[in-house]
Amino acid sequence: MVQIKEGFGRLEHRYLFQEVGRRVAAFHEASPETDIIRMGIGDVTLPVVPPVARAMHEAVDDLAVQERFHGYGPEHGYEWLREAVVRGDYASRGIRVDTDEVFISDGAKSDLGNILDLFSAENIIGIPDPVYPVYVDTNVMDGRRIRYIPCREADAFMGEIPEEGLDVIYLCYPNNPTGAVITRDRLKAWVDYALRHGSLILYDSAYEAFIQDPDIPHSIYEIEGARDCAIEFRSFSKTAGFTGVRCGYTVVPKGIQGRIPGGGQLGLNALWERRQGCKFNGASYISQRGALAVYTPEGQAGIRENILYYLGNAAIIRDALVRAGLHASGGRNAPYVWARTPDGIDDWVFFDLLLHRAGVVVTPGSGFGAEGRACFRLTAFMDRARTVEAMERIEECIHGL
Amino acid sequence: MVQIKEGFGRLEHRYLFQEVGRRVAAFHEASPETDIIRMGIGDVTLPVVPPVARAMHEAVDDLAVQERFHGYGPEHGYEWLREAVVRGDYASRGIRVDTDEVFISDGAKSDLGNILDLFSAENIIGIPDPVYPVYVDTNVMDGRRIRYIPCREADAFMGEIPEEGLDVIYLCYPNNPTGAVITRDRLKAWVDYALRHGSLILYDSAYEAFIQDPDIPHSIYEIEGARDCAIEFRSFSKTAGFTGVRCGYTVVPKGIQGRIPGGGQLGLNALWERRQGCKFNGASYISQRGALAVYTPEGQAGIRENILYYLGNAAIIRDALVRAGLHASGGRNAPYVWARTPDGIDDWVFFDLLLHRAGVVVTPGSGFGAEGRACFRLTAFMDRARTVEAMERIEECIHGL
Repeated sequence: MVQIKEGFGRLEHRYLFQEVGRRVAAFHEASPETDIIRMGIGDVTLPVVPPVARAMHEAVDDLAVQERFHGYGPEHGYEWLREAVVRGDYASRGIRVDTDEVFISDGAKSDLGNILDLFSAENIIGIPDPVYPVYVDTNVMDGRRIRYIPCREADAFMGEIPEEGLDVIYLCYPNNPTGAVITRDRLKAWVDYALRHGSLILYDSAYEAFIQDPDIPHSIYEIEGARDCAIEFRSFSKTAGFTGVRCGYTVVPKGIQGRIPGGGQLGLNALWERRQGCKFNGASYISQRGALAVYTPEGQAGIRENILYYLGNAAIIRDALVRAGLHASGGRNAPYVWARTPDGIDDWVFFDLLLHRAGVVVTPGSGFGAEGRACFRLTAFMDRARTVEAMERIEECIHGL
Repeated sequence: MVQIKEGFGRLEHRYLFQEVGRRVAAFHEASPETDIIRMGIGDVTLPVVPPVARAMHEAVDDLAVQERFHGYGPEHGYEWLREAVVRGDYASRGIRVDTDEVFISDGAKSDLGNILDLFSAENIIGIPDPVYPVYVDTNVMDGRRIRYIPCREADAFMGEIPEEGLDVIYLCYPNNPTGAVITRDRLKAWVDYALRHGSLILYDSAYEAFIQDPDIPHSIYEIEGARDCAIEFRSFSKTAGFTGVRCGYTVVPKGIQGRIPGGGQLGLNALWERRQGCKFNGASYISQRGALAVYTPEGQAGIRENILYYLGNAAIIRDALVRAGLHASGGRNAPYVWARTPDGIDDWVFFDLLLHRAGVVVTPGSGFGAEGRACFRLTAFMDRARTVEAMERIEECIHGL
């Protein structure tokens, strides 16, 4: 019988959002009349902006006529999109990224999981706590050892730099789930740590577009030395409403090396190119045309407006939580607000309480790790009226406790 | 320094189609006036059919208005598409496949590579020879041992059933690269072998839509017992011109088990659900809407017409090769024609010869494995006029040898 990777036997039974979904479905069945507001899952609600829709219509038109038909695209993305990424997201900020260091994909979640294909099970992985749960699960599946990096509020959730040399370190800023950002100094400290220990940083920058504060770094490559130790993951999902369209990209600088167990080194850029060449056939032509339109002036203006709308929601959420007497953070340069439960009650208990008494779905903090206990996450992606209503219900519920 | 999987150090330097591309690019640079006809790579050229284009336009329209916006879809595909797959591809042929056994993805290449995430490096993998090269590379990367299963013309390329019990076996019918099909009896012999030895069959059925002969099985699940030992991979790429759209699906029956090294078993359906839940975020909503339209009566009529067009090309290719005195096979229920080189000359030498003298690109057989030496593959996906011209040039070139 085919042998399964041992790690699958060690996975926790249920993925956080599936458990949330299960509880919501059970509640909905029991109380079908309740109008549930889902402030839990981080999915956008605003439509794609007009130039993106136009570009995708044009792409479909191309596919429908023989003269302009597009079959397999380059596995690593069309050159015009890779160039637009370099120009729009890096060169415009004075950051060096080369076109052949940009790999277009169907999304950052795929890349963050699939990048692990390159690494042996022997590596020790540093994962922040609290954290996006798939960092943990994807490593557990492969049997890698994990060291948690506590990210505490006293330290602005920027992560305690470990004593020991870890092989791979995940960082995510603007952060999911805490909505925290990282200062340039702390990011430099992480890069210096990685260079000193020969660590690789996997920098998840899916929420970069939400950064408003001019002092916050937009890319890890703003830090000297990062081109030798960091891979950066970005996505159009939250930037441009592409959660259903599917497009993202990963930057693998040509300077980063890995060591082969028997001896010798290989460049990660070439390895990722090979991995994707064997296990991926390029992102949809339609999605890539849509992503290209994000970089037009009209596209940029449109997504900026949407991001400000979501950040407006985040301010409403934060203010309501504070009015309710809770301790809340995040939501200023990120679409997530993080808060402590009232009187430190268990976060799954508080989840059930808000679901049953207020009809509002939040995400329990312990689903993101031990440091998330007695905390919860709210997302700013709902429409304005629903956000206002959800927060009124939450305020009322908390006042009634 | 991060440790790379040992297998990456053992990969052959260059992926077949990259080497073909390199030689074509070099020739094009040296002889820019030559009108090169690419009969090598298996990419479609006919546009998507009108109902598919209409559905994708509607999907883009949905994404552009808030009321009909679609964000994250279910990771395993929309229920309406999973149901259409079950009805259209299985129930209509009297084959049992349940909706929750169908996993929609961005394409069969991704799934064929990613499925390996489930399996330990200890498994021994049986791979036909000649074969689609990524089966080999994706296993070499992970360090799995490979046993080649010779597929010889004397045996109609159906694969010699091994004596030993292999853990995983790849089968691909209609076959890439030989264009061969498998009889019901031989497929039953493979399923019986798998059940006897506890092997898992990975059945790549990307070219199923090209089957014309009523006696050829369309799915491995037509064979009794296959639900306990086989995963089937299908794609809309060649069926409906989706190579640029990106959509496919994988069927993982709930009966198939794998064993955990420490003891115990796990169902592969649940494991694949978990893997995809952690490393994939669903296929594009637009692509899934397009795929759904493939199952409408107008969609079915359109793709049937396209498939017959490609099979018409295949007949032209085969006939021309035979006229040129070569030994050719395939192309009757598959879009590939497989032929021996004239006088058994080396296939890369013949590749260069056809490229330089005829300006036609074919695929050298040895790129698919040792059994492909002194053979080459032609694809039927070009347009009719180009196919005719390519074959005239090839005939002339061979007559001039």
